[in-house]
Amino acid sequence: MSENKKIELTQAIESQGQKVRQLKSEGAEKSVIDAQVALLLEFKKELAVLEGTDKKASKASKTSFTLKTAKGTKDYNDKDMAIREKVFNTITKVFKKHGAVTIDTPVFELKEILAGKYGEDSKLIYDLADQGGEECSLRYDLTVPFARFLAMNGKEYQNFKRYHIAKVYRRDQPAMTKGRMREFYQCDFDIAGVYDPMIPDSEILRILCEVLTDLDVGQFTVKINHRKILDGIFEVCGVPEASIRPISSAVDKLDKLPWADVKKEMVEEKGLAPECADKIGEYVKLKGGRDLLEILKKDDVLTKNASASAGIKDMELLFDYLDVFEVTEKMSFDLSLARGLDYYTGIIYEAVTEKSAPPKLADGVKPKKKTNSDELDESTVGVGSIAAGGRYDNLVGMFSGVNKKGVPNLQIPCVGVSIGVERVFSILMAKQKAEEIKSNETEVYVISVGDGLLKERMQIAKQLWDAGIKASYLFKNKPKLDKQFAVCDKEMIPFAVIIGKDELEKGQVRIKDMRSKDETQGGGVTIEQTKMIQELKSRLTLL
Amino acid sequence: MSENKKIELTQAIESQGQKVRQLKSEGAEKSVIDAQVALLLEFKKELAVLEGTDKKASKASKTSFTLKTAKGTKDYNDKDMAIREKVFNTITKVFKKHGAVTIDTPVFELKEILAGKYGEDSKLIYDLADQGGEECSLRYDLTVPFARFLAMNGKEYQNFKRYHIAKVYRRDQPAMTKGRMREFYQCDFDIAGVYDPMIPDSEILRILCEVLTDLDVGQFTVKINHRKILDGIFEVCGVPEASIRPISSAVDKLDKLPWADVKKEMVEEKGLAPECADKIGEYVKLKGGRDLLEILKKDDVLTKNASASAGIKDMELLFDYLDVFEVTEKMSFDLSLARGLDYYTGIIYEAVTEKSAPPKLADGVKPKKKTNSDELDESTVGVGSIAAGGRYDNLVGMFSGVNKKGVPNLQIPCVGVSIGVERVFSILMAKQKAEEIKSNETEVYVISVGDGLLKERMQIAKQLWDAGIKASYLFKNKPKLDKQFAVCDKEMIPFAVIIGKDELEKGQVRIKDMRSKDETQGGGVTIEQTKMIQELKSRLTLL
Repeated sequence: MSENKKIELTQAIESQGQKVRQLKSEGAEKSVIDAQVALLLEFKKELAVLEGTDKKASKASKTSFTLKTAKGTKDYNDKDMAIREKVFNTITKVFKKHGAVTIDTPVFELKEILAGKYGEDSKLIYDLADQGGEECSLRYDLTVPFARFLAMNGKEYQNFKRYHIAKVYRRDQPAMTKGRMREFYQCDFDIAGVYDPMIPDSEILRILCEVLTDLDVGQFTVKINHRKILDGIFEVCGVPEASIRPISSAVDKLDKLPWADVKKEMVEEKGLAPECADKIGEYVKLKGGRDLLEILKKDDVLTKNASASAGIKDMELLFDYLDVFEVTEKMSFDLSLARGLDYYTGIIYEAVTEKSAPPKLADGVKPKKKTNSDELDESTVGVGSIAAGGRYDNLVGMFSGVNKKGVPNLQIPCVGVSIGVERVFSILMAKQKAEEIKSNETEVYVISVGDGLLKERMQIAKQLWDAGIKASYLFKNKPKLDKQFAVCDKEMIPFAVIIGKDELEKGQVRIKDMRSKDETQGGGVTIEQTKMIQELKSRLTLL
Repeated sequence: MSENKKIELTQAIESQGQKVRQLKSEGAEKSVIDAQVALLLEFKKELAVLEGTDKKASKASKTSFTLKTAKGTKDYNDKDMAIREKVFNTITKVFKKHGAVTIDTPVFELKEILAGKYGEDSKLIYDLADQGGEECSLRYDLTVPFARFLAMNGKEYQNFKRYHIAKVYRRDQPAMTKGRMREFYQCDFDIAGVYDPMIPDSEILRILCEVLTDLDVGQFTVKINHRKILDGIFEVCGVPEASIRPISSAVDKLDKLPWADVKKEMVEEKGLAPECADKIGEYVKLKGGRDLLEILKKDDVLTKNASASAGIKDMELLFDYLDVFEVTEKMSFDLSLARGLDYYTGIIYEAVTEKSAPPKLADGVKPKKKTNSDELDESTVGVGSIAAGGRYDNLVGMFSGVNKKGVPNLQIPCVGVSIGVERVFSILMAKQKAEEIKSNETEVYVISVGDGLLKERMQIAKQLWDAGIKASYLFKNKPKLDKQFAVCDKEMIPFAVIIGKDELEKGQVRIKDMRSKDETQGGGVTIEQTKMIQELKSRLTLL
């Protein structure tokens, strides 16, 4: 109805407008034009009123909600959380085994704390609305708040192993099925402090191997490289200093793009001489273990470069320590690993697993080979990283402020790793069927036969709770037996204590193993009520 | 320099302004006035440029950060977190014993989900900035997101015990020392589902008592009341229907204000007849246990009221169940308990403890007595609540939308409790000295005597880790013995494995209990290295 009226009015406004324009162009008398303009304004006013009313009406009808979570976020239900807690417990156990403590920082920081830390990606930061007071933003990662914490709490925390498992926020285009969300967990372990070279670095790599082994994500490899070697390579290949970080970013794409594309980016976009790029190409295709280190040590050009030489010395020490920790075989020393973030200053690494591969290629489609190489192009076999990190010695200094000489007031070197828990979850969730996940921990269900026996069930549940046994019962006065059994099945509760009037009068209860469908002796064993706790406890320890 | 120039200019602008005004008042020629105005504008422009430059300069000099967390938020360091985890583990253990699962919802919700749920307090909601896309707000509590989750996931979760421990956000005036912060933890347990009356309600109260007992917060009392009894009282005392919630809010202040003040609010602010208020006053001073129930049952006026009568029936059932659970003695049936939130529909409760009392009164100052009563005014003895909750049967329906008949599409009754963990933390932190809190879990420190023996220490640490023992060592090539002992002390590590060149050659290590200052046998026992794990494990089980 009002829709039709609006269409009529819109048409009237259009033709009236034409009329006015025509009168004007014909040089009609002012009074004539004014009269027609007044009519036009009348139509416009009527339309505005109509639209305003509609808006109000549509607002009133919107008392029902858009029942959803915000874009890029999701609820985790009880099954998700059961897997999630298992993962967190596994990871936390390893961290604690290595002496780590945890800290917690607020979910939002002053805006200026985050400013200028993430380069281009700063546009992905969520800001809080200006409601008076300070300007704040949701944290983008856990590393910057950690550095801020260290800068603030200074001297107390110069020797510090800390982990932090918490959510971070990025206003990215979400791809929920690929685990790319706007709210997601990060799981960071960092060692802060002034120590002798490569000792904490090797422990981080040992921890990473322990975590990935314990998480049972399948075969994995840890790619390692050293920023100083990489920078040395760029220098000896003739990359101008100002171009080192951009060229490094291009190299970082080698796990997704063939060399030809990366070279093109270096030469055409970043203005590198083609012969420089070719030299780099020779280096970054190298990968191996300690053998690669021997090759680099024989490279006279490289060893004469101060940066590369320092990096090689670090790597040699690192391999010594990794040997002691028996994790060398998990490493792939890979000169094409560059890592995106600018703040790394030493060793860098990234763990990949075969389980994080994308869907199989269609029949007849072969994995693409990299141009100028007989290696597979990883973008077509698809191995994603499930953990990454490196050494960052200068970040804390960025927060501590500088003294009059321009030297940071407090400089705490750090090395850390971030486990990509969302990817780990998706690997583990894919392995398990939802209906097989027991999200509660209930051990015993208290069931009545015949009469409701509510207070008697409560009384038994109370005894079980007092004994530390996880127990539950149906919140009904007179529940049916099959309903109670159905709960046991659905919640995967292993044992039932079954009571009936007769048993209770004799001071007895029946204990039934709900996992076996054994129905001998009426489905379970009858015992004295006084022995119930003891019997259940000994059965539970066998679980 | 520029400061002086600015003062000069400001003065020049002022006197030039006067000159212009005078010329105008004297009726000077337009050209004369214009010339002086032009000069005035020139001055103003110069000042503006100067101020603009200064602003830029001051911006540039602000590259150093305001090194702090946002107002009303704080970092939790390792000691805080150790206590926090202990509290969460204690609480979670009780929840799981009662069959609960956990879910997680996003930290921000669509703005419209939160709108209209918190009355006046809606002004305290944090909004996210408009950066394009949906309008979102940080969650204000965990109850509304839970109801939203239930409405969305409907039928699957009609029988559901869930807990949720997470941070919520309120743009309140913070009082950090009193535990009132803008970011703080809530810890909620709720039972959702259609059950027989008072069965889940009694389990919630049992859980609350278990939690508070296990948390060791000292003596506590759980005040209980029933919204239906309260509403019945208001009805029989002649409170007009529209005034019931406002009058209920006034009653809720009785734990902080004397009756006279509450009566004044009822009569003067809320327009209640003084005789109505007096009748209410007679009821709300009643408290007790089951005996109070007997008194109410003999009150013919009250029992004839449908609402009160239903409430009394509920309470009778509840006391029966609480008797079975042996928690009745912890309860105080208190008709003055009203609870602020509008959405409660049945039983309501609030736990108070003597440990949350404010500082002692100064000498000679006696606790104030309530007017018209010989009871103490609690605001001067000060007992705060550390947990609260109640039944809310209609909240889920607010999200599920209504059908054509105006009936909610999905209605899931709920009853729940929220533990005030921040208050619990402050009680527990006050009991413990920071230096006595062990925030790491390290069990063994690997120490070298004489030479650095770095790789040997690493080798032993690796053996310990492989055996599941939490171990650490100093990240130095040649650490001094006293430095290593100092770490043991500071981190409260109970055992040390001490190695020296001689011991290693003989295949031996020394194990030292770092808690005893026993220095016999050179401070520890020397054993074969092959027996190290076994020896440590048996010592650790005795811890």
